[in-house]
Amino acid sequence: MSSSRFRYPNRVAALRSLIQEQEIDGMLISDAHNRRYLSGFIGSAGYLFITETDAVLATDFRYTEQAGDQATGFEISQIKGRLTEWFPSLLADLDVKKLGFESDNLTVAGLKLFEDAIDETDVEVSLEPKSGAAAKIRAIKDEGEIELLQKAIDIGDAAFEETAAKLTAGMTEKEAAWEFEKAIRERGAECLSFDTIVANGPNAARPHHQTGDSELQEGQTIVFDCGATYQGYCSDLTRTVVLGEADDEVARIYNIVLEAQETAIENVTSGITGSDADAIARKIIDDAGYADNFGHSLGHGLGLEVHEDPNVGPRGTTVLEDGMPFTIEPGIYIPGWGGVRIEDVVVLENGRARVLSHAQKMRF
Amino acid sequence: MSSSRFRYPNRVAALRSLIQEQEIDGMLISDAHNRRYLSGFIGSAGYLFITETDAVLATDFRYTEQAGDQATGFEISQIKGRLTEWFPSLLADLDVKKLGFESDNLTVAGLKLFEDAIDETDVEVSLEPKSGAAAKIRAIKDEGEIELLQKAIDIGDAAFEETAAKLTAGMTEKEAAWEFEKAIRERGAECLSFDTIVANGPNAARPHHQTGDSELQEGQTIVFDCGATYQGYCSDLTRTVVLGEADDEVARIYNIVLEAQETAIENVTSGITGSDADAIARKIIDDAGYADNFGHSLGHGLGLEVHEDPNVGPRGTTVLEDGMPFTIEPGIYIPGWGGVRIEDVVVLENGRARVLSHAQKMRF
Repeated sequence: MSSSRFRYPNRVAALRSLIQEQEIDGMLISDAHNRRYLSGFIGSAGYLFITETDAVLATDFRYTEQAGDQATGFEISQIKGRLTEWFPSLLADLDVKKLGFESDNLTVAGLKLFEDAIDETDVEVSLEPKSGAAAKIRAIKDEGEIELLQKAIDIGDAAFEETAAKLTAGMTEKEAAWEFEKAIRERGAECLSFDTIVANGPNAARPHHQTGDSELQEGQTIVFDCGATYQGYCSDLTRTVVLGEADDEVARIYNIVLEAQETAIENVTSGITGSDADAIARKIIDDAGYADNFGHSLGHGLGLEVHEDPNVGPRGTTVLEDGMPFTIEPGIYIPGWGGVRIEDVVVLENGRARVLSHAQKMRF
Repeated sequence: MSSSRFRYPNRVAALRSLIQEQEIDGMLISDAHNRRYLSGFIGSAGYLFITETDAVLATDFRYTEQAGDQATGFEISQIKGRLTEWFPSLLADLDVKKLGFESDNLTVAGLKLFEDAIDETDVEVSLEPKSGAAAKIRAIKDEGEIELLQKAIDIGDAAFEETAAKLTAGMTEKEAAWEFEKAIRERGAECLSFDTIVANGPNAARPHHQTGDSELQEGQTIVFDCGATYQGYCSDLTRTVVLGEADDEVARIYNIVLEAQETAIENVTSGITGSDADAIARKIIDDAGYADNFGHSLGHGLGLEVHEDPNVGPRGTTVLEDGMPFTIEPGIYIPGWGGVRIEDVVVLENGRARVLSHAQKMRF
């Protein structure tokens, strides 16, 4: 059976290769992002059943019409009633005996419902936990994905620059975050890719500060971590800005982070692991005496989710490959004083990092 | 040990009663809403461990400070490293042998990590799936929750009325949705409680239409389903509006839905089931000849999530009780023509429904 009629034939083919490798007859895809990635269907409910020869999208009456429009190549099966009424017979139709499921998505109670439905019938199927199958495929992006990611990044960059130009002492963190959100939406983004972090002064010592009512001050660092979602793809940008004059200490720490960030961008290559990449930036921060002040990973992959494979941190064992976009975002955080973080998105091409983010950085 | 030092002592006490009933030694709470509901902690990562005498919030370095501020009464335990390094010893400290977990939240892979961590040590603990424990407690709201819910509803009502006044033929569904979103944010809401549905003309035949670029037209129904989140509590409102003149057919169908909705509000009482409540409205729609055109439930509970217990639909077996807020939202959907849905939030008090939504409805 040809698979060229699929919206994303290469993705379905990659999953089918994994199905063969894993010696199962098919995969049940329950994760919403994986469902969208593989089928093109963006509704909020439904399951994919992919075997070597078949591809079924089972969803309820609310979505069957939309599913037919979006998930070309998939057979649309309308879910009606309890699981027993459709799940075992669908497996029998697909001639599946060993069905993999996404163990990092399906809940314990969800699995039990599927298992009970099988037990109530005379269909004999074993459900086998498989974790990270689609995530591994998703780490490497195709051209169309890089285009959408670039568009999300361009929106985020422009919105950030518009917002940065409006920042003034006395504005609250929340007001600044809302300016960014309006700016991305007015440029066509669907939504924020995560809650904007605006961390002013001592608040910036917390990498995941909860944006609040504290007022921006002159002379302190303001960490602004923000992203937009465009056609499902997520941007992620951090800039550290200072209103008014920056003192020598601010400039000195900022420049250490900037050097760590730019050195990592220049030296990361395809073929090294996420942990190797992390070490490039970490060495510069360690050597400057701030080993204990960079308590998170250098970066992470991103795409349909703002955090996805590969892990670009001290525990990142994945080998980085051409076609993988990820963030490079070192930081230094000093309790009581504040913090600095600078983040760009890069993609590996021909073995080197090409920078996708173009928002201006401060230079001291 | 006194529990009055908790932020929400009654909620912790209710969970402890359930722990006793279930004959387990404690519950592991992994669901983010339940974590917030029980402890007051609103960070995005962490686990609660609640036993008859202890209450621990385990979270990572990013959140320990915030956890200490928010989750008063809980002992804060900082998670470091792999699960084996903290989970079994914590269970030993708490003297837990049978630990319930939220099977409708924990994934299959997540459970395996917990089980493996136990297996690697000589601690003997059994993990027992418990589903819906906290959800059952959450269905009945306390006074503070009703206040927050009312505030979320007031914001949504005012934002809807502001938006409705701006609707004009030629505006796109997305533009209309964005006007609503700006209006809730400028009134202090954190975010939308769900993606706004603006469904114009034939699009309104789909209860969960994906808001798009189609332009609003005069004389057709526009279903506007929208909500705001305030301090975590979610509002949910649907109004059906018509720009310009409504023809007799529009008015006739609108009035059937309105009658079904208002009759349900008047007649729903504490002590009946969700299914009984659903039947009140459904009978009116059935009798008018539209039995096949009302393909969803009459309503649903809401609070920290926009859909929570009780189920107020044909399969709703939960007995409705005083203190439960839920939606009443019948609809009629006709392929090719469009649809009508009208939704308010009510709360049961002294056996009867008090309406919390006050946004204006069209009258024909």
